[in-house]
Amino acid sequence: MTSKQIFIRVRYHETDGQGRVHHAQYLNYFERGRVEMMRSMGFSYKSFEATGLLLVVRKMEIDYLFPAEFDDELTLTTTVEHARGARIRHSYLLTRDSDTQQIVIAKSEIACIDRSGAVRRLPEYLQS
Amino acid sequence: MTSKQIFIRVRYHETDGQGRVHHAQYLNYFERGRVEMMRSMGFSYKSFEATGLLLVVRKMEIDYLFPAEFDDELTLTTTVEHARGARIRHSYLLTRDSDTQQIVIAKSEIACIDRSGAVRRLPEYLQS
Amino acid sequence: MTSKQIFIRVRYHETDGQGRVHHAQYLNYFERGRVEMMRSMGFSYKSFEATGLLLVVRKMEIDYLFPAEFDDELTLTTTVEHARGARIRHSYLLTRDSDTQQIVIAKSEIACIDRSGAVRRLPEYLQS
Amino acid sequence: MTSKQIFIRVRYHETDGQGRVHHAQYLNYFERGRVEMMRSMGFSYKSFEATGLLLVVRKMEIDYLFPAEFDDELTLTTTVEHARGARIRHSYLLTRDSDTQQIVIAKSEIACIDRSGAVRRLPEYLQS
Repeated sequence: MTSKQIFIRVRYHETDGQGRVHHAQYLNYFERGRVEMMRSMGFSYKSFEATGLLLVVRKMEIDYLFPAEFDDELTLTTTVEHARGARIRHSYLLTRDSDTQQIVIAKSEIACIDRSGAVRRLPEYLQS
Repeated sequence: MTSKQIFIRVRYHETDGQGRVHHAQYLNYFERGRVEMMRSMGFSYKSFEATGLLLVVRKMEIDYLFPAEFDDELTLTTTVEHARGARIRHSYLLTRDSDTQQIVIAKSEIACIDRSGAVRRLPEYLQS
Repeated sequence: MTSKQIFIRVRYHETDGQGRVHHAQYLNYFERGRVEMMRSMGFSYKSFEATGLLLVVRKMEIDYLFPAEFDDELTLTTTVEHARGARIRHSYLLTRDSDTQQIVIAKSEIACIDRSGAVRRLPEYLQS
Repeated sequence: MTSKQIFIRVRYHETDGQGRVHHAQYLNYFERGRVEMMRSMGFSYKSFEATGLLLVVRKMEIDYLFPAEFDDELTLTTTVEHARGARIRHSYLLTRDSDTQQIVIAKSEIACIDRSGAVRRLPEYLQS
């Protein structure tokens, strides 16, 4: 089971009028987690797309546990739970560094497709 | 069961390098659906926050069925499934107007809190 | 001189921790103004891109005069100041509907290019 | 004259349907440059706001020279050109690391205000 930790500093524009990170913003953090996980495995998502394949999000489930605020230092742990055929299931844990407070937990299902939208088998190096 | 339909035109900045609406963007559409539903009931979310209460997203589950593209005309149907105590459960259906293609379906759970973060009972007019 | 007015309702996710519209967000409003102006002239920017041409922003100058807030109803007036060769210069005036308070004024220069990045003459219908 | 360099990796959600960084996104990069410059001087913008003061953008001028793409590694140099009374003028230079290609140059004027919107003198440590 592959896991990757990245560090995220909350930016001002990611907050909303409640003074907290806007709830849609976490999906951008998760995307960044997936890209950096692929990079840590020696692959580039940019190169992956250059081969004509795309990874697209099919399902996303998010539990918002505690608000993150501007300038917070967060750690995102992205884990591949399953990667077979055309699908990857990831889980995500986002914690605040200062006190390990859990901020968000989430799960997603990603599908591999080509430019025409047809489902395509994942390359071997992404299977697990 | 209260339901509200709104019309959404996809804006250029909401698309990403795949030429489709970025998957995080749909949560902004859902938020807009909730605000406009409250308005159609005769209430303003801005006035609601002015009383010291906030509605915050606790859970979100999204199924991405089909990609939306720049300039698409979409219809979002937001439905209150349950609103009791401090929680509201909504469901969402987003379809493309030209052919009623389903784009996204989703469910969320929203909690009512005050500025200190304490859970607070929903005002009567939001209970159902 | 062509001008087009559109109505904009400020959305929650467009605000930041200061409780105001984030300053980067106005550029998205201007883009929407340009797209709707083209539509009101009988053309679609989506169809324009389908011909292999792109309009890209080369310069942007913005004066932020007064903050807009969540749920404000705004009117954006987009004007073509000059459109010759490969360039269009627009001006923008954003006001609050309730009291005509000026929120932002701005100017931009847009260039017409093709997918290879080469500068291309604007189609006749966009010249003025 | 104070200057600060930061490193920026382009994220997928920052691109648009043209496969390039959306032009509004650069303002978020500049904001990040200002926050990190303040941190490198030993101050936190979060603590600054906690004293009841805000820094708000009054003017922004941007020249878009070359498109940045997903996953590009960029360097942003933020420079304080002038900081006196209630105003700070910054300049920005964003370059691509691989070949020092200039992507964007920009200037901004920032004002110090309090929560009521009244203009306030900058704290001594921000004057230059």
